[in-house]
Amino acid sequence: MQEERVEALPLITLTTDFGDQDGFVGAMKGVILSINPEAQIVDISHAVPRQDVAAGAMVLRNACPYFPEGTIHVAVIDPGVGSDREAVVVETAHALYVLPDNGLITLIDQLTPVQRVFAVTQLGFCLPDISRTFHGRDVFAPVAAHLSRGLPPEEVGSAMTSFAELDLAEATVGDDFVEGTVVYADVFGNCLTNIGPDQVAFDAFDWCLTLNGRRVTQLSQAYAAVPTGAPLMIQSSNGFLELAVNGGSALAYFELAVGDRLRLERAKGLDANHEEAGL
Amino acid sequence: MQEERVEALPLITLTTDFGDQDGFVGAMKGVILSINPEAQIVDISHAVPRQDVAAGAMVLRNACPYFPEGTIHVAVIDPGVGSDREAVVVETAHALYVLPDNGLITLIDQLTPVQRVFAVTQLGFCLPDISRTFHGRDVFAPVAAHLSRGLPPEEVGSAMTSFAELDLAEATVGDDFVEGTVVYADVFGNCLTNIGPDQVAFDAFDWCLTLNGRRVTQLSQAYAAVPTGAPLMIQSSNGFLELAVNGGSALAYFELAVGDRLRLERAKGLDANHEEAGL
Amino acid sequence: MQEERVEALPLITLTTDFGDQDGFVGAMKGVILSINPEAQIVDISHAVPRQDVAAGAMVLRNACPYFPEGTIHVAVIDPGVGSDREAVVVETAHALYVLPDNGLITLIDQLTPVQRVFAVTQLGFCLPDISRTFHGRDVFAPVAAHLSRGLPPEEVGSAMTSFAELDLAEATVGDDFVEGTVVYADVFGNCLTNIGPDQVAFDAFDWCLTLNGRRVTQLSQAYAAVPTGAPLMIQSSNGFLELAVNGGSALAYFELAVGDRLRLERAKGLDANHEEAGL
Repeated sequence: MQEERVEALPLITLTTDFGDQDGFVGAMKGVILSINPEAQIVDISHAVPRQDVAAGAMVLRNACPYFPEGTIHVAVIDPGVGSDREAVVVETAHALYVLPDNGLITLIDQLTPVQRVFAVTQLGFCLPDISRTFHGRDVFAPVAAHLSRGLPPEEVGSAMTSFAELDLAEATVGDDFVEGTVVYADVFGNCLTNIGPDQVAFDAFDWCLTLNGRRVTQLSQAYAAVPTGAPLMIQSSNGFLELAVNGGSALAYFELAVGDRLRLERAKGLDANHEEAGL
Repeated sequence: MQEERVEALPLITLTTDFGDQDGFVGAMKGVILSINPEAQIVDISHAVPRQDVAAGAMVLRNACPYFPEGTIHVAVIDPGVGSDREAVVVETAHALYVLPDNGLITLIDQLTPVQRVFAVTQLGFCLPDISRTFHGRDVFAPVAAHLSRGLPPEEVGSAMTSFAELDLAEATVGDDFVEGTVVYADVFGNCLTNIGPDQVAFDAFDWCLTLNGRRVTQLSQAYAAVPTGAPLMIQSSNGFLELAVNGGSALAYFELAVGDRLRLERAKGLDANHEEAGL
Repeated sequence: MQEERVEALPLITLTTDFGDQDGFVGAMKGVILSINPEAQIVDISHAVPRQDVAAGAMVLRNACPYFPEGTIHVAVIDPGVGSDREAVVVETAHALYVLPDNGLITLIDQLTPVQRVFAVTQLGFCLPDISRTFHGRDVFAPVAAHLSRGLPPEEVGSAMTSFAELDLAEATVGDDFVEGTVVYADVFGNCLTNIGPDQVAFDAFDWCLTLNGRRVTQLSQAYAAVPTGAPLMIQSSNGFLELAVNGGSALAYFELAVGDRLRLERAKGLDANHEEAGL
């Protein structure tokens, strides 16, 4: 972990699994604006599947890299609220993250390595009464607001020498095949895998997939390249292989669940590209 | 198409069918703020029914006319992403729209005629790597951000002489009847029609509707004018006739679907107003 | 009702039951920004259960107290739109509220007593054409925008000497028991009650609950203090007793509905704390 520092912007993003009904996210926004009326608050998602830390890690990976340098990202998917898990401030060369130390930072760390981690132990930067169930309001929001006013991260508490990371499945490559895992399903049922450009050349087309009795015989360049209701494989917007159904749900079509394995095989003697319909 | 120009504000609205779970909208916001940190971003809807261009057109119609002159409206309901549909910047006398050329602009064009349309062909205003599946992030968001910094619309690419429009049903008027179509159902099941003040005088009450075995015998002035659970006809907030159920869903009550036809008949010898309950 | 005044900030929050699909909230934002381009708009919730004024009152209670002094809170859960209910501006020592006079202010009034109430009768602060169904856009939003520009509340219309309040259940305390009511269920099924620190000392553990055949034998300090799927009682983030299930729904587990009564009994000769698992 290195020692560079980014200057914090008064730009704060919020990612939670709180839903949008109850006003809990509103309370976090009120706390932030009470501490720093100049803060600019941007919602990333409040519909992360409940207590699903791996999904939260992917949502952060989808959005945070696109924000300006120095942005402060608050993420609260926190099944351990009130237990002894730490609340931490994580610094990368690009941004600050304020979140529970439960692995949420894992995919960000892969892109932009974590440099420093501080446990929030200076309770003066939290609300005076910390509830048992809502550290988003009482800890994470006020700490982020103080950081956005220029508080150096090292002042929130004690430096940590390690942090929690999720145990990620890895893709494996053989002579004529690649094996990977479904790591995320988006709200439409598109299934993101961990098979990336290191394993598959996405400009080639000669891969086919057989999965739960369903078959896809090439890589496509657009959802609309196959008829409505037909399955396809495509390079997703974060660079990895995605299984999709044009206008439908790959999760349903292939009867998949996050964590399922899949195997691509190189097509033999087949110019699969010629089969592509609809372009 | 005329040639007047509005000055772009740094106010950018977002309308998509991306849902609020996955962080995709967050990525668009990050891209915008990275290009123009002064941009003020306002969410209109991210819950447009998936790939439903006609519904997206209605959502734009519901919201965009109320924004200040010069606002930049980004709309991404884009079943053709990655195909050869154009990404366009559309200029009206009131605002700029950044969206796929697939008919999304149709209802706006009815209110405030389209003046100029430019295809986004200058890729320097897009992200360096344009993905196959997420032009919201890679094309529409960055183009809008550059426009909000003062880029003249004509610099995004080549002028187009025509643009896609949806084929809209029209209401027809007879001696003692009006026939129209359900054009949109809102999230509560209120059914908006294309029957407007040109076809029906909404201050009169003497119209009745029989539809799928259900009957409404007058126009109401408030949802609460009929008992809870009872159906009513009312002038909707955009001026057209709406079928509703007080505290319920007209979509369910009348067993309707968008696109269904309906027929109003003038009540004969009946002072229907006297039947109205609850006012 | 006293006569102190807070200075209005250009900070406006929005709480509605409009959902996030149709662009109705977007229209309200456009109206506000057209009247006051400097206004900072913050969403609290647009997913209040439809026409549920009591739930809306709780959402306001969850969020509004955390906003800076002088914030203007707009709330539109308005089953009586178009009827003769008044649109009002309510002033407390902390904030301004712009809402229908239907009891939405009740729980705020308990925390920060209402000082003055004005009916919106000066239609010049509304949109020129007030629709029958959408006063959020035509009345509440523009009035809030004018207040955010410094319009004194008394100029919106005539002072009222009373206002609508919800009839709230009260908790009752006996020698060895407390009886209360479920007053709100959040989106996860956590059940908030009206049993507060005046009735129960939350640092003690010696209370047990039997409800619809299910039993909880102590108060917990964290959701994670019991195994996944197990029920617990905990002090909620607003200070009152909450029934929860770790990773699940108390609403389903206890077969509860809002309005149901429950009875806590003091445990006899039992150091219930020792039974607590998982801390």
